[in-house]
Amino acid sequence: MKVNGKSFRTIWDEDGKVKIIDQRNLPHEFIIENLNTVDDCVRAIKEMHVRGAGLIGGTAGYGMYFAAQEASDIQEYEKLGKLLIATRPTATNLKWAVDRSIKEVLKDFDNRVPISLIIAKDIVDEDAEFCRMIGEHGAKIIEKISNEKNGEPVNILTHCNAGWLAFVDYGSATAPIYNAFDKGIKVHVWVDETRPRNQGARLTAWELGQHGVPYTIIADNVGGHLMQHSQVDIVIVGTDRTTYTGDVANKVGTYLKALAAKDNNIPFYVALPSSTFDWEIEDGIKQIPIEQRDGDEVHFAHGLYDDKIIDIRLTPLGSNAANFGFDVTPRRLITGLITERGICKASKEGVSELYPEMM
Amino acid sequence: MKVNGKSFRTIWDEDGKVKIIDQRNLPHEFIIENLNTVDDCVRAIKEMHVRGAGLIGGTAGYGMYFAAQEASDIQEYEKLGKLLIATRPTATNLKWAVDRSIKEVLKDFDNRVPISLIIAKDIVDEDAEFCRMIGEHGAKIIEKISNEKNGEPVNILTHCNAGWLAFVDYGSATAPIYNAFDKGIKVHVWVDETRPRNQGARLTAWELGQHGVPYTIIADNVGGHLMQHSQVDIVIVGTDRTTYTGDVANKVGTYLKALAAKDNNIPFYVALPSSTFDWEIEDGIKQIPIEQRDGDEVHFAHGLYDDKIIDIRLTPLGSNAANFGFDVTPRRLITGLITERGICKASKEGVSELYPEMM
Repeated sequence: MKVNGKSFRTIWDEDGKVKIIDQRNLPHEFIIENLNTVDDCVRAIKEMHVRGAGLIGGTAGYGMYFAAQEASDIQEYEKLGKLLIATRPTATNLKWAVDRSIKEVLKDFDNRVPISLIIAKDIVDEDAEFCRMIGEHGAKIIEKISNEKNGEPVNILTHCNAGWLAFVDYGSATAPIYNAFDKGIKVHVWVDETRPRNQGARLTAWELGQHGVPYTIIADNVGGHLMQHSQVDIVIVGTDRTTYTGDVANKVGTYLKALAAKDNNIPFYVALPSSTFDWEIEDGIKQIPIEQRDGDEVHFAHGLYDDKIIDIRLTPLGSNAANFGFDVTPRRLITGLITERGICKASKEGVSELYPEMM
Repeated sequence: MKVNGKSFRTIWDEDGKVKIIDQRNLPHEFIIENLNTVDDCVRAIKEMHVRGAGLIGGTAGYGMYFAAQEASDIQEYEKLGKLLIATRPTATNLKWAVDRSIKEVLKDFDNRVPISLIIAKDIVDEDAEFCRMIGEHGAKIIEKISNEKNGEPVNILTHCNAGWLAFVDYGSATAPIYNAFDKGIKVHVWVDETRPRNQGARLTAWELGQHGVPYTIIADNVGGHLMQHSQVDIVIVGTDRTTYTGDVANKVGTYLKALAAKDNNIPFYVALPSSTFDWEIEDGIKQIPIEQRDGDEVHFAHGLYDDKIIDIRLTPLGSNAANFGFDVTPRRLITGLITERGICKASKEGVSELYPEMM
């Protein structure tokens, strides 16, 4: 997508060097960073220079390219893979990307460096293409609502950033929005701030603005009120892990918006490339591990003051904070899943119709 | 309640001078401010030096004492009352306090100054006493849960600040908590941060900490996840206006927590002195006006940096933000109302059993 009119992806390689957009200081600073080692990739994921389901997968893919360079034997190589998987417990794309690379490399370990570079490129290209397809399928839902509203703007609420910054390009939740907008369908996006890391207020707002899509930032508390007053036509969110039965782990607070959508008969869609499915677990609430992050993300806010980016303390000194990163939205609250293969019900039956080979 | 071991109310008069705690810079600075005119009171309410249902009522009561001093005729006096009522559209205690003062003063306009001082004192004393009674009634619910848990800590979730800082003393939602804690019942409070003004992270955390009550601050997004995992035993919130039919306007985001409580079979109580009832309107969602505040409260965060209190920018320059201050929780989601007269169902029938004279 475009940044100041120039096309970018969130991760790419150039003459063997891997580059990312360091997202920590967006929207205030746009910085491109080099990744040169497995350690660089681990730190970039853990400290959230990069974040989001697809982009974490892409970074792990390139991490395995560095692992291939750094490891002298298979044991060491697989150990570096585990290091990458351990960076974020909830995201399933991590394990998917690492496993995909290992599987191909183990067929010809001597050629591990060129093979893992090809796999990394495949992972990011496929992520971009899958997100583009999600956009194609999802835009039809927005277009239908637009027609029902006689062309009045379709109000879409989204939580966190499942935009192109969370993937390689296009995004998952945003792909249908960009696609519809580019076709001339009138849209307006309610952007949840998404505390405590403010990915909505910082990233989704920034990328929608760069593309020219009309949006309004709201506190995470506001969505229910808007839904009660017919100010939201559809909710579209992303996911960090979706069970094959249709339960969705996404940024904490998603479950609250799904409850409000259900209570007000508003369609609630989850957009995801198939790399985000977990094909092994059945019960999302009981089985998906939920990352707990440092309480300082709650105690401090990060932003711009006097042309510097600083952290200010919000809470009393000595206070306690808990910081759960995700929650699970049960399938009964989800209208449908938008995937690269089309739209399905959030259920084992729905998913298996689109992905019969996985069941 | 205590501040550094010394007892305080949020508003009081001393030798004819009215004093408040300026809450804008809490928990970082504890400042006592004088109010000397109607204008001072208007500004204190509008700019949120004071906030919260009961305290706004108390400040309006003292505002009418200044109105009595400043007005030379009834017309002017009533005009000043309207000025006070217009400061915050959702809070119903404002109108209640102003009307109560006007009603008594008009019986003997020549003695308006001493009469309105007596009324102002009555309003704040009654507010404190009613909150104390709410504590007595509500603590029984907490005690029952504590017994069911064999004395394990009762986990209480609250949203915004309906603490003593929002009233004259004790608070509404916090009164049962303080009462139970003082009786030796083990409690732990999940404190919603309450964006965008962070009344939970700033004020509720601070006052619970000053009293020694264990608490943990969480982002507003987290409550649903905690409820899914049996980490919340009861939700208690305050309200800025409650219809006689049991619909509750409270800080935006309350409705989302009520939905999550319902979805997880967790009791959801609203605590209020009767001054917060609106005896005239029936349908909270359709009829209660919802205040929209400046988007800058969303764009900027307010906190401590290098011993100074500053505002930092969170969002992209040129972005839009909407800032709805309240939402309405429909009565069907509410387990009960805790009032100074006891606990009742959130319904016309329930309320009329406790307040038959108002129906």
